[in-house]
Amino acid sequence: MAEKPIERKLPSRQEDFAEWYNQLVLRAELADYAPVRGCMIVRPYGWTLWENIQQALDRRFKATGHVNAAFPMLIPRSFIEKESKHVAGFAPELAVVTVGGGEELEEPLVLRPTSETIIGHAYARWVQSYRDLPILINLWNNVVRWELRTKLFLRTLEFYWQEGHTAHATAQEAAEETRRMLDVYTDFAVNEAAIPVIPGRKSDSERFAGADQTFSIEAMMGDGKALQSATSHNLGQNFARAFEIRYLDRQGQLQYCWTTSWGLSTRFIGAIIMVHGDDQGLVLPPRLAPLQTVIVPIFKTEAERELTIEAAAKVRDALAAAGIRVRLDDRDGVSPGFKFNDWEMRGVPLRVEIGPRDVAARSVVLARRDRPGREGKSPASMDAIVESVSQTLATIQQSLYDRALAFRRQNTREVGSYDELKSAVETGFALAWWCGDAECEARIKEETRATTRCIPLDQPGGSGSCVVCGRPAKEQAVIARAY
Amino acid sequence: MAEKPIERKLPSRQEDFAEWYNQLVLRAELADYAPVRGCMIVRPYGWTLWENIQQALDRRFKATGHVNAAFPMLIPRSFIEKESKHVAGFAPELAVVTVGGGEELEEPLVLRPTSETIIGHAYARWVQSYRDLPILINLWNNVVRWELRTKLFLRTLEFYWQEGHTAHATAQEAAEETRRMLDVYTDFAVNEAAIPVIPGRKSDSERFAGADQTFSIEAMMGDGKALQSATSHNLGQNFARAFEIRYLDRQGQLQYCWTTSWGLSTRFIGAIIMVHGDDQGLVLPPRLAPLQTVIVPIFKTEAERELTIEAAAKVRDALAAAGIRVRLDDRDGVSPGFKFNDWEMRGVPLRVEIGPRDVAARSVVLARRDRPGREGKSPASMDAIVESVSQTLATIQQSLYDRALAFRRQNTREVGSYDELKSAVETGFALAWWCGDAECEARIKEETRATTRCIPLDQPGGSGSCVVCGRPAKEQAVIARAY
Repeated sequence: MAEKPIERKLPSRQEDFAEWYNQLVLRAELADYAPVRGCMIVRPYGWTLWENIQQALDRRFKATGHVNAAFPMLIPRSFIEKESKHVAGFAPELAVVTVGGGEELEEPLVLRPTSETIIGHAYARWVQSYRDLPILINLWNNVVRWELRTKLFLRTLEFYWQEGHTAHATAQEAAEETRRMLDVYTDFAVNEAAIPVIPGRKSDSERFAGADQTFSIEAMMGDGKALQSATSHNLGQNFARAFEIRYLDRQGQLQYCWTTSWGLSTRFIGAIIMVHGDDQGLVLPPRLAPLQTVIVPIFKTEAERELTIEAAAKVRDALAAAGIRVRLDDRDGVSPGFKFNDWEMRGVPLRVEIGPRDVAARSVVLARRDRPGREGKSPASMDAIVESVSQTLATIQQSLYDRALAFRRQNTREVGSYDELKSAVETGFALAWWCGDAECEARIKEETRATTRCIPLDQPGGSGSCVVCGRPAKEQAVIARAY
Repeated sequence: MAEKPIERKLPSRQEDFAEWYNQLVLRAELADYAPVRGCMIVRPYGWTLWENIQQALDRRFKATGHVNAAFPMLIPRSFIEKESKHVAGFAPELAVVTVGGGEELEEPLVLRPTSETIIGHAYARWVQSYRDLPILINLWNNVVRWELRTKLFLRTLEFYWQEGHTAHATAQEAAEETRRMLDVYTDFAVNEAAIPVIPGRKSDSERFAGADQTFSIEAMMGDGKALQSATSHNLGQNFARAFEIRYLDRQGQLQYCWTTSWGLSTRFIGAIIMVHGDDQGLVLPPRLAPLQTVIVPIFKTEAERELTIEAAAKVRDALAAAGIRVRLDDRDGVSPGFKFNDWEMRGVPLRVEIGPRDVAARSVVLARRDRPGREGKSPASMDAIVESVSQTLATIQQSLYDRALAFRRQNTREVGSYDELKSAVETGFALAWWCGDAECEARIKEETRATTRCIPLDQPGGSGSCVVCGRPAKEQAVIARAY
């Protein structure tokens, strides 16, 4: 994450997608570079977006019986080593505290890269009998992974996320929980973020370190690459055995628990940017946008100024009273055109323009962010402003989803040959029969830089020939280059 | 913080206040010890209480124009050294990351003990002209201070808090902000937590490291000791000079900004416990309680069980629909008496009891947590249950405040002599004329272990003789032993 100065002009997505992304994050004031390599400052506009994501998810977690708690960030180094696959996965990425209060520590402490181990230690103390199960806890916190190549939101040393950690009496309950949370993420992505996602199972090579099964939702970005947007892990009895999480069952027998974990991070903000954004900047789905509507008064004379601002204030009050997140941009010394660009960069879904003639006609102009120019403009009556704005916001929300889905469909090819696969992953997703062999997967990765994103839950049925080796294959996989 | 096992019986507050506190925190499942010395796990019941505190404060922060953001936890060691008093105050308490991704770091990183320095670095970049001011940002996060003697919630290595950081164009605006946030904390403590507090100015020796002035709210705990419950600092131009936070004023002159910071932490949960708790356990103010009402059905036969649970479920639904945080305790295999004790330990403000005769009479019994035994019980009609419960919760909220205020008044003495001071601080607060000299303050601390908690904003006027040296004094100070 080399620190970039803000450029005068946003490059087009076509021209330089990576640089378009960096510039957009800075110019929309979502985030900024921090003085420590690879860390980020999430600025108020970006953090408010995250707060809205948090609320939309937290509501769903609570509705499915989960409660929040907080676990320490400092974990004894030895904990990470207790689950053999877990340590192999995370050891290279650890940040280590060796000094506290001026003295060398006896045992170094790591900053949590994820909390399965410290959760395992606590659950082992808390669980005695089947009556104590299930435990359904979620944490909203920050974690640290020492990444080498970083990018704002997408991969940072410290990031923000939620991590759910549950313990169950039976394998079936844990399997159900793993899938339930995948459904929660899918529902959130589709209905709040307007992002179509493919829920599926990860291949063995892409599984979480220490999981029996990992599921994810995968989304297509505006450049055709994939972004893993959330994951849900069935941890089997791996952590229960490593940390001795056991319970007495109804027959008085001591049993190991079955555990799960699942998470969604500030990475998701990167997905929102890259799925919906355009060459003018950010485009936010109304349900998550910090500001849903901005009102810009248009005037030349002082008399017009008073007239339009007075009318705009009334519109703002009506919208705010209806629970719409709205701001009146009455800044002096900047032109309406400057304000239009400013709010377009920040992705506010709907602009309300009010000029002197509009005031006279008790009318306003609505301008949709998702349809720049004349095409996205329509008049609305001031007397029915709440209804018009609410309906337009709902239309924008749906239209963003439809557009993203159409884009993904256009850029997804069901491929019958290895050559077709190689060509498909240049611009989007390949859907291919795969025999399940890790060698075939490795060859694809090496030769095309594309990876098995997931084996979609939704399969066509039947069988085919593996796109690499030609042997029989029972499942199709989504194969793509990924962030 | 020596780890204590849970005892069978809660000691009385009279007998052993410190151990009463520890046992209560564990038994009410507010928090648990973590595997790393001095760290804590905040369990779901404790974290939900913190979430309610967060919401009550966040509402007030947003109503006064503040927005939330997130700053990195990792800070270059050199940053802490830029403000000379700041480094003197925090250097002994730092936790230091020296290894990342398997390699020794070139510059060690500290885990933030507070964020003034990294905020200063960012604000210096963000502020150009007077148009960029004020900046009114708040952070909800975790910080680390390497404390030697720790106690759950009151003093832990890692704790949770909010820290506000603002930058202003003038000294007056910064002074106003500092006082405004002190008022916000006072309003929150009084009206949400039912805790009477004394807002005041800290003496020079008790000031925040790097501040020109520190204000605090001080509360009296159930053992007569003081707890600093929130602070608000006027940082003057100290951090602006250390980090070069400058702006061009309207005349085109480069000026240093004036900054403030203010915070309230999970320590406040300790205050709630120690102000309201009794020998049966926790007592929570209704406005912050995770559960405001618990319903306990009382039955012997299976027929009675069905009858009472059906009625209880209707009461629960009515209360929940009215926005009251309610739970029906329909657990099998535990007696009503066990349930009563259980919820009393957890401090649920109001219990609703429903037996078969109550069902027949379309009535329930309300039992107030703040008045144990018969005195706190009263009948209520099922048909007006929402009104009765709402009113009783409001009565409890007020009554907790009144009781805490009466207790503080009883245990506060205006002292005229040093001997009176010594006696007063044995059991509570002393209110004493003080000349302002640090030597007098130091003598009190050395000889009585009591410290100057604050110089209350509300002064009697006039003047007196310093309680230590007898010289003229213009102000009274609150002097007490403190957590």
